[in-house]
Amino acid sequence: MELGSPGVAPGGVSVSAVLPAGGSGERLGGATPKQFCAVQGRPLVSYAVRAMERISWISDVIVVVSPENTETMKTIIEKYGHKKVTVVKGGITRHRSIFNGLKVFAENEFSSHLLQKPEVVIIHDAVRPFVEEDIVAKVVMAAKEHGAAGAIRPLVSTVIASAADGCLDHSLERARYRASEMPQAFLFDTIYEAYQQCTDYDLDYGTECLHLVLKYCKTNAKLVEGTADLWKVTYKRDLYAADSIIKDNLSQQVCVITNVKETLAQVGFLLPESLKSQIKVEAISQSLSKNDSHLQNIISGQCYNFVCVNDKRCAIQEIQELVDMLEKSNIPLLYPVVLISVHLDISENNSFSIGMEDLTMIKKFARETKKKNILVYGLLIQCKDPLLLQETVNSAAALIMALIKDRNPELIGQLLVA
Amino acid sequence: MELGSPGVAPGGVSVSAVLPAGGSGERLGGATPKQFCAVQGRPLVSYAVRAMERISWISDVIVVVSPENTETMKTIIEKYGHKKVTVVKGGITRHRSIFNGLKVFAENEFSSHLLQKPEVVIIHDAVRPFVEEDIVAKVVMAAKEHGAAGAIRPLVSTVIASAADGCLDHSLERARYRASEMPQAFLFDTIYEAYQQCTDYDLDYGTECLHLVLKYCKTNAKLVEGTADLWKVTYKRDLYAADSIIKDNLSQQVCVITNVKETLAQVGFLLPESLKSQIKVEAISQSLSKNDSHLQNIISGQCYNFVCVNDKRCAIQEIQELVDMLEKSNIPLLYPVVLISVHLDISENNSFSIGMEDLTMIKKFARETKKKNILVYGLLIQCKDPLLLQETVNSAAALIMALIKDRNPELIGQLLVA
Repeated sequence: MELGSPGVAPGGVSVSAVLPAGGSGERLGGATPKQFCAVQGRPLVSYAVRAMERISWISDVIVVVSPENTETMKTIIEKYGHKKVTVVKGGITRHRSIFNGLKVFAENEFSSHLLQKPEVVIIHDAVRPFVEEDIVAKVVMAAKEHGAAGAIRPLVSTVIASAADGCLDHSLERARYRASEMPQAFLFDTIYEAYQQCTDYDLDYGTECLHLVLKYCKTNAKLVEGTADLWKVTYKRDLYAADSIIKDNLSQQVCVITNVKETLAQVGFLLPESLKSQIKVEAISQSLSKNDSHLQNIISGQCYNFVCVNDKRCAIQEIQELVDMLEKSNIPLLYPVVLISVHLDISENNSFSIGMEDLTMIKKFARETKKKNILVYGLLIQCKDPLLLQETVNSAAALIMALIKDRNPELIGQLLVA
Repeated sequence: MELGSPGVAPGGVSVSAVLPAGGSGERLGGATPKQFCAVQGRPLVSYAVRAMERISWISDVIVVVSPENTETMKTIIEKYGHKKVTVVKGGITRHRSIFNGLKVFAENEFSSHLLQKPEVVIIHDAVRPFVEEDIVAKVVMAAKEHGAAGAIRPLVSTVIASAADGCLDHSLERARYRASEMPQAFLFDTIYEAYQQCTDYDLDYGTECLHLVLKYCKTNAKLVEGTADLWKVTYKRDLYAADSIIKDNLSQQVCVITNVKETLAQVGFLLPESLKSQIKVEAISQSLSKNDSHLQNIISGQCYNFVCVNDKRCAIQEIQELVDMLEKSNIPLLYPVVLISVHLDISENNSFSIGMEDLTMIKKFARETKKKNILVYGLLIQCKDPLLLQETVNSAAALIMALIKDRNPELIGQLLVA
């Protein structure tokens, strides 16, 4: 289970997290601050919150937003079912916002109820959606031991110092320096003391918590080498990258549910086989039933792609059952689910044609399920010539993969033909 | 004209470019070095070459590749019609490769014919595909004046120095430092002298040309603030971002060619109107003709999207003419072209249906044109009810936009229905 009861943190410490989300996103060049930009339909901040919240040993997640975005943030928490979050009003700079977030654990004025002060507090960014439990645990452990710790990455470009005349003063030796990334973690008392001691100048112009604890608490943070996915969404291209990475992550597994009569069993077998070379396949050869625990397990195992193979002309009833099951899980809440209804036809009738009524029906159905974040597409596999069967099935698998990888909401309700 | 005869550089200097492309792409995590990774079907290095080559005042573009990739690079030059390129074998490090590239202008041994030594040489990366003429000109001008110049960008993360024990030593004040990016430019004699003077240690462990000219020629490079698109493709996410940016750039303009009978003129008018809210539209209301100079102008003006609206059941002949015209331009050579054949049907016959023969024919046609990098899709607009006409046209426009933005090669030959 992803969302278990609070577990025990590495080292047995109590841990909470503060996510500053007050930035204005100027570098992104849009009107919406980047933490509220939608990726696969969901605001970026929700991904970062989820990344923290799903770690069972993190107790509270404090999201600090600028006052004008408090309601937006509360709506996001409600809509995506976030459970551990407290929203706090930020200050005018990053440091002031983080300080406000920390006060929730120490001073009464900032929250209706004082939250349990954690031994270690994580500071992470609302615009770093891909942080894994592993690196968070490492940083927390290091913070417990050293008082402070932060993830680092190698520098991508050489760093140079410019002189007053706009010319090169000197370049830094790249190997000696690192980019300071997130997450960082601190003994709560240490970081809180640093914020209490620091000057207005620090609060207004500084950005680096590691620097504050070094300056005011003489704590040299432990640096922890992080993975490439810790990067911060800064520019529009980073939003594109985040979108592609999420689509990639959602395209790892497909569940193929086959319900066809004897004569079509071969196709029902060949299609999952053809898909297996490109994606992990869970094949179910039976009629759908609401009590099917195998399917329930697949759904709760975070499968976001379903292919229903059948030989009926219009199998909307069968798909409806699956839609109902998905709706009861929280899967389509967090990510769009792809559902492809595959219709097999091996009639040797050359005048086969697709009627407009069928098309209108699947479109109407798809428009309804889209509101539930389930993207329904139709696919017709026509295999009159047994010699071309394998080729047709391969072409169907290619179309299925394209629909899964793209998750294009504009193409829902269309009927593709393999 | 994009590819004119060599023009005059800013400041009237002669200019050539060296592109080191010898990297192994370890950080990308794939087997293919990143400069050879395909983005929209074309290797990244070809984008960087093109970005230099299309600048009329750049005479020669030297691409330095590791010996095992010489043939790959020559194939790329042939395939994408690059005209100004000389391929040079690289050394085992970045600096040794750049030095080899420079030698082509100064020493006979590295090229069959000695190229004309430029006054200013640009050094750019093969993995920075989006450099604009404007910044190249600025850097060249600054190099002419100061002897050296380089593009810089603000730091995205705080830079920190680590101590020997893996703990924080100190953080740098972010505002004083910059990331050193590309392009850079140098008076040829200055950079060449720096390379001749520098030590083996420099050649083996250094990466920064600005540092070399400072150290060996006492030349303080002028730093030129660059735009966000100068970033270097380093990680897999950067390839995703590059792909999305290119798709975005290709989706700025569509040419709608309408050829329908009087009764359908309204739809022929409404569709471009509906598209105009999302994309720049060039509308042509006439039959296609090979001598159509307006269409020719649109094609040579780098339009990558075409919509052919007609009332014939199967209009492959009409599309074929457009395909022929496109093939004669070099447009589909560099980028995939989207061609959507829209069929209008306003018959009140409820039993309208799509026959398999039509589908098979458009699929077969699309498979052939895909080899020419032209992606053909079908779209049926069915509008029996005049009251729903606007809604249907809007839905057609949304499908057209989805096809243009996605450029999905797997969905070619499919017939979508609005």
